[in-house]
Amino acid sequence: MAELLITEADLDDIAAGAAILGTGGGGDPHIGRLLAGAAVRAGGPARLVPLDTVPDDAVAVVVAMMGAPTVMVEKVPSAEQAALAVRALAAYLGRTPTHLVCAEAGGVNALVPLVAAAELGLPVIDADGMGRAFPELQMVVPTLYGIGATPMSIADEKGNSGIFDTVDNHWAERLARSATIDMGCSAMISLLPMSGAQAREALVPGTLSLSAELGRLVREARAAHRDPVAAVTGRLGGVELFTGKVVDVVRRTEGGFARGEATVEGLGDRTGERLLLRFQNEHLVAVRDGEVVATVPDLICVLEAEAGTAITTETLRYGQRVRVIAAPCDPRWHTPEGLELVGPRYFGYDHGTVRLGAGTVA
Amino acid sequence: MAELLITEADLDDIAAGAAILGTGGGGDPHIGRLLAGAAVRAGGPARLVPLDTVPDDAVAVVVAMMGAPTVMVEKVPSAEQAALAVRALAAYLGRTPTHLVCAEAGGVNALVPLVAAAELGLPVIDADGMGRAFPELQMVVPTLYGIGATPMSIADEKGNSGIFDTVDNHWAERLARSATIDMGCSAMISLLPMSGAQAREALVPGTLSLSAELGRLVREARAAHRDPVAAVTGRLGGVELFTGKVVDVVRRTEGGFARGEATVEGLGDRTGERLLLRFQNEHLVAVRDGEVVATVPDLICVLEAEAGTAITTETLRYGQRVRVIAAPCDPRWHTPEGLELVGPRYFGYDHGTVRLGAGTVA
Repeated sequence: MAELLITEADLDDIAAGAAILGTGGGGDPHIGRLLAGAAVRAGGPARLVPLDTVPDDAVAVVVAMMGAPTVMVEKVPSAEQAALAVRALAAYLGRTPTHLVCAEAGGVNALVPLVAAAELGLPVIDADGMGRAFPELQMVVPTLYGIGATPMSIADEKGNSGIFDTVDNHWAERLARSATIDMGCSAMISLLPMSGAQAREALVPGTLSLSAELGRLVREARAAHRDPVAAVTGRLGGVELFTGKVVDVVRRTEGGFARGEATVEGLGDRTGERLLLRFQNEHLVAVRDGEVVATVPDLICVLEAEAGTAITTETLRYGQRVRVIAAPCDPRWHTPEGLELVGPRYFGYDHGTVRLGAGTVA
Repeated sequence: MAELLITEADLDDIAAGAAILGTGGGGDPHIGRLLAGAAVRAGGPARLVPLDTVPDDAVAVVVAMMGAPTVMVEKVPSAEQAALAVRALAAYLGRTPTHLVCAEAGGVNALVPLVAAAELGLPVIDADGMGRAFPELQMVVPTLYGIGATPMSIADEKGNSGIFDTVDNHWAERLARSATIDMGCSAMISLLPMSGAQAREALVPGTLSLSAELGRLVREARAAHRDPVAAVTGRLGGVELFTGKVVDVVRRTEGGFARGEATVEGLGDRTGERLLLRFQNEHLVAVRDGEVVATVPDLICVLEAEAGTAITTETLRYGQRVRVIAAPCDPRWHTPEGLELVGPRYFGYDHGTVRLGAGTVA
């Protein structure tokens, strides 16, 4: 596959599809779409290159938003702020990045590299660090390969910037999270400097093209009066867990995260059943009538029942008709090291992992 | 005055004198003394150069401890950690520092540059940024000259480090304070890169030699059975505010600071009177029988009644016999800009400044 040019016409599909992969997190796709649209109009199409074509000696860096999705909606970041973060990291590294990388799939963070690409004149790799969204920055597949998240940079909209160089990726998360809170609960970060060889080994390939495809499937199914949720579930090799109406949402902002639970009351085949969703920026656990039926690291996606549009955890509310699907994550997350980093127990739940098609794992 | 060599024999006097100028803050002189002693034994005498001999093109940087003095006592920093902070800043600046500078007078921070000097092979300027101690890093005379505290570095004992580059010195304080708290409430920082010309204009001259002199005056007065408190008060051009016994101390740790109040019941001439001391790391306000008799930015020093030794705010306790003196600060703190930065109202007290010899100022 060759380099692709991402024009404004592609952005709706990418934002919609990335929001599905974002499993409720990764920010409001409307914000990502607005930012990327402005960037592409100002700077021309962004170049998307397949992961397997990135040369060994490339200098790839992630650029992303860090913070509470609830805040990003009100404090919209800019292309200049994204570019400031990348330039601050480049200055510290003493090397010029050659490629930009998505931290995660999600309505904002899948698009942030496209936003920065125009400003910096750099291509974006068709890949990401997670193959989904996760709430903390050490939760990237490169951590499993011992690749450091730092040196990393952080920048706010006022002109403040910082660099962290830490002993491990958990410390990078901790220091950057505090700085993000000081900066008003949202900041732009650039991190995880990798050679092309490291990127090819450790990133999850195809994230942006998969996002575009998912967005297109939903759009086309809707136009043809077919079922968009079934189209998404089929493409991801997932299962539909539940259909129903949101009857309760409890949320609290704790340590810069949006945590909470939502209860969905069954409709149709599921009448009389209940699904409990537990989230922390992303949907992490699904409990159907008391049984844990899906868990992180597999993807739990909440979609509008008719339209198939992803519902982020911060926009979940009473009365929404939803369908909940589960889909397999990158298999590297199911290794013991992967589960230690992103399994249910890390998030404070007192049960093991449910792996799609494989049942419960201690 | 030429370059002086600071040997281990000089350190007791410097630590004792700097603790007096530290007005209750700046850390435990015992810790500063231990660190500097080890550094001088390992690396040889530290070179102290007068401020007016620093060449225009010097690259002077401050090196200091940041954090709660109560924590420094348990988590003693090392010369390597101080050197790591300076080297991280040097790497970011792309320039090699030629001189080290004290952030403040105080039992620890007056000595930290002497600790780093041996490790780095650099001279220390006989000066500091405050002419006393203050709790926040923007509270340095260079801020009044528009000199940026950043780029600054921060390093912990685990090997984590960071750089901040901020729009003003208040933002540097804010971001570095959060990182310090993450790092366990104490960290080593290097900041305020200055040319020699800037240093000569903006620093407070003579701090280390004055500290050594104060320490010597106390020691000699004690040996000769003269009054060490009177010797200190005379040398600083100050006044004795009170003599008595500490009868109450209330303290709380808030946002990384040790805040509180102490009540001293009068003895001798002061029998029947009471002095209330308000502190936030440093002693900031003295209220005698309801009248505010001294305030920040002038120095309020609490000394052991007989020995003349400085008592830091974290070691203040019931039953201590103390004498409280006030002494004039660097006159630049009494400008409107100075008082905005370090006056009583900045610290949340609802009254203006009392200037020694000049009475109350709105």
